Amino acid sequence: MTNGPAPGALRASSRPRIVIIGCGFGGLEAARALRRADVDITLVDRTNHHLFQPLLYQVATAGLSAPSIAAPIRNLFREQRNVTTLLDEVKHIDPASRTLTMASGHAIAWDHLIVAAGATHSYFGNDDWARHAPGLKTLDDAFEIRRRVLMAFEAAERETDPAKREALLTFVVIGGGPTGVEMAGTMAEIARHTLPGEFRRIDPASARVLLVEGGTRVLQAMPPELSTRAQEQLTRLGVDVRTGARVTRIDARGLEVGGEGIEPYRIDSGCVVWAAGVAASPLGRQLAGAVGLQTDRAGRVPVEPDLSLAGHPDISVIGDLAAAKSHAPGKEPTPVPGVSPGAKQMGRTAAANILRRLAGQPTRAFVYQDYGNLATIGRNSAVVDLTTPAGPVRFSGYFAWLFWLFAHVYFLIGFRNRLVVLIDWAWAYWTFHRQARVVARSDAS
Amino acid sequence: MTNGPAPGALRASSRPRIVIIGCGFGGLEAARALRRADVDITLVDRTNHHLFQPLLYQVATAGLSAPSIAAPIRNLFREQRNVTTLLDEVKHIDPASRTLTMASGHAIAWDHLIVAAGATHSYFGNDDWARHAPGLKTLDDAFEIRRRVLMAFEAAERETDPAKREALLTFVVIGGGPTGVEMAGTMAEIARHTLPGEFRRIDPASARVLLVEGGTRVLQAMPPELSTRAQEQLTRLGVDVRTGARVTRIDARGLEVGGEGIEPYRIDSGCVVWAAGVAASPLGRQLAGAVGLQTDRAGRVPVEPDLSLAGHPDISVIGDLAAAKSHAPGKEPTPVPGVSPGAKQMGRTAAANILRRLAGQPTRAFVYQDYGNLATIGRNSAVVDLTTPAGPVRFSGYFAWLFWLFAHVYFLIGFRNRLVVLIDWAWAYWTFHRQARVVARSDAS
Repeated sequence: MTNGPAPGALRASSRPRIVIIGCGFGGLEAARALRRADVDITLVDRTNHHLFQPLLYQVATAGLSAPSIAAPIRNLFREQRNVTTLLDEVKHIDPASRTLTMASGHAIAWDHLIVAAGATHSYFGNDDWARHAPGLKTLDDAFEIRRRVLMAFEAAERETDPAKREALLTFVVIGGGPTGVEMAGTMAEIARHTLPGEFRRIDPASARVLLVEGGTRVLQAMPPELSTRAQEQLTRLGVDVRTGARVTRIDARGLEVGGEGIEPYRIDSGCVVWAAGVAASPLGRQLAGAVGLQTDRAGRVPVEPDLSLAGHPDISVIGDLAAAKSHAPGKEPTPVPGVSPGAKQMGRTAAANILRRLAGQPTRAFVYQDYGNLATIGRNSAVVDLTTPAGPVRFSGYFAWLFWLFAHVYFLIGFRNRLVVLIDWAWAYWTFHRQARVVARSDAS
Repeated sequence: MTNGPAPGALRASSRPRIVIIGCGFGGLEAARALRRADVDITLVDRTNHHLFQPLLYQVATAGLSAPSIAAPIRNLFREQRNVTTLLDEVKHIDPASRTLTMASGHAIAWDHLIVAAGATHSYFGNDDWARHAPGLKTLDDAFEIRRRVLMAFEAAERETDPAKREALLTFVVIGGGPTGVEMAGTMAEIARHTLPGEFRRIDPASARVLLVEGGTRVLQAMPPELSTRAQEQLTRLGVDVRTGARVTRIDARGLEVGGEGIEPYRIDSGCVVWAAGVAASPLGRQLAGAVGLQTDRAGRVPVEPDLSLAGHPDISVIGDLAAAKSHAPGKEPTPVPGVSPGAKQMGRTAAANILRRLAGQPTRAFVYQDYGNLATIGRNSAVVDLTTPAGPVRFSGYFAWLFWLFAHVYFLIGFRNRLVVLIDWAWAYWTFHRQARVVARSDAS
């Protein structure tokens, strides 16, 4: 009946037990980097799929269906026999006994542990905002945002009160990072191009899309000139970009905005999306406490140059959960940005360092290889900031969009997904239709 | 702002107001049949999509993603300007004032009403069974069944107790109709072909799939020899078919089965699916009561030969909600089977009769055109019973499966869906993979 190590039997195996928490970009890459190693890998994730986060906003805006950007984890490791995948949620990490406790009640012991539990959204202490302004981290989040966006138009078509109708047709995205910019741009695209002609009582093109950013510019990880391009492209798409505007309140009927030199004002909205803050998984704080470390303001765990924990070489922390620095030879250590290439590279380094330890060799410091930065704004528009040996290459507009498109489709996991995503996009591009405009649970009232 | 009749303003229009409740096969066909009529059509559905029910089991078994079998209603009627689509739920029908009351609080008045609210599952009075054995009518149902099937395998991989593990790997489908047969066959396919190799502690192929049918044979709408073929093919796929077995109890840990000459026994199961009974929408009983009619045992509303209600020629009832008979000239009236062709044909007849009334012509009696009956069992196997002028044509096996496949893809709405469904199936067929094995909310504990 069993064709692998039995649950209790991992101890029986003489091979080193490597446990990886989380199958995001970091955890996935770490497990793959160990594919030829003579070890027993247990990969624990609380979902059954690896999610291609960079395209999650497309699921939220009904452009793609979930399976196009999510692959079953155990299917990804079907051929990698040294990986055992467990769908479970880690509740507690005990460095002393080197044991994890799971939501299912089971426990797992490790010789080497890689913690890649990732991040969740942060409402800067205003957790009651979550109800009114969902964030975008999981497929459930994406379905909920898709439902709210589409249902707002449906409610507007039903609505007889002009003021209420206008509020229902006001969409607000909070946070001008890549996700916020992509969400706002795509929402404007839906209102201007996808829905017109399908309603009889409202004009979807009259919908307002606002992008509210507390900082002075959108895409702050980008060079200023690309932020300017992005903002121009957003405006062209019909997005009302408001920088330097801080959210002071979010309720069921909208939000309040203030900021330096800004007379506080209210925006009535039927659909508010949160793309402002992320915080490391709570697991980080628990782990840090257990090993006597302090997490940073974002809840990330400080790591040694080799990504292990001070005094606990058997534990490595990677990805969004790690306050990691890049240690390029002869340079000052620089913080690693919270992007997927960073997580992937940390995954490879952590795995390599475990193999070095097993071979009795010294570990190596993590060096982040920066390839640059991409962001799409909407139909035909994106900004690209490539880091090349010859210096930065920066461009925007149509070719940036094509570059973004193929880069993302290329990195998508699995041939079928790439093919179907390309078909969906080609279809959407030529017809302006969005194929995933289906809401399973649509509350009429 | 409004590019159609304003909410309150329908009365202002001089054109006849036709209201259609429900956008299943019947309602969709009725609205389309009126596309050239000089009328105002209001189409009310509580979801935003038309669902291609015959393939819903493929969503439940992770073969297809939801958008492949669901099309946004208002997109389907984008070009048909005389249709206003409203996402809302009808709470009350008042024939006296000719008004509908909605969940949103709004009201709609009609000159002609077509009620096509369809059916839901019936647990024969044991409504507490619903929790333990979900049925398959909506996308939410399909996602829940998908979640339970996939999560049962995940829990089994975690489970250390052999007895519990065996229960988790026991899947039970209740009801041997087309849906039950398709579900059971596909579940067996998943266990035998899709999942093996992906687990390390369990052998998915050791999973048991039981099909429990109270009657003497599966597919009772089919001629006996095709039922026999279907049962043979199910057995070949590894399904344990139990006919003449009545369910006497369903709880969180499994079910109890009895029946004539059967010693009552218990089946421990982690995943039970209900495909046994359907009942007409509750709206039928409310409507019947309001016009002084009695619904039949299945809760269906008795209709006149022209599908209108006795004494209420302005109200027609069609599809699964109608206890309709076919009135072929010179023949005894015969009941109409609850299949999609029946609903579509009723939709066309109801629409045509409304136009005849508007033209002051006598209405015509409904005549059901029976093209036959299809059911698929699983990979490469199906049974086909065609009704032709030259008499019945019956076949089963691989060619029946191809026939079934192309018939269903042909009737799918929208080019893109057909294309993507074909790609998904071709991919699934050659690789044995199932592309939609993604569970958004996967409870580890």
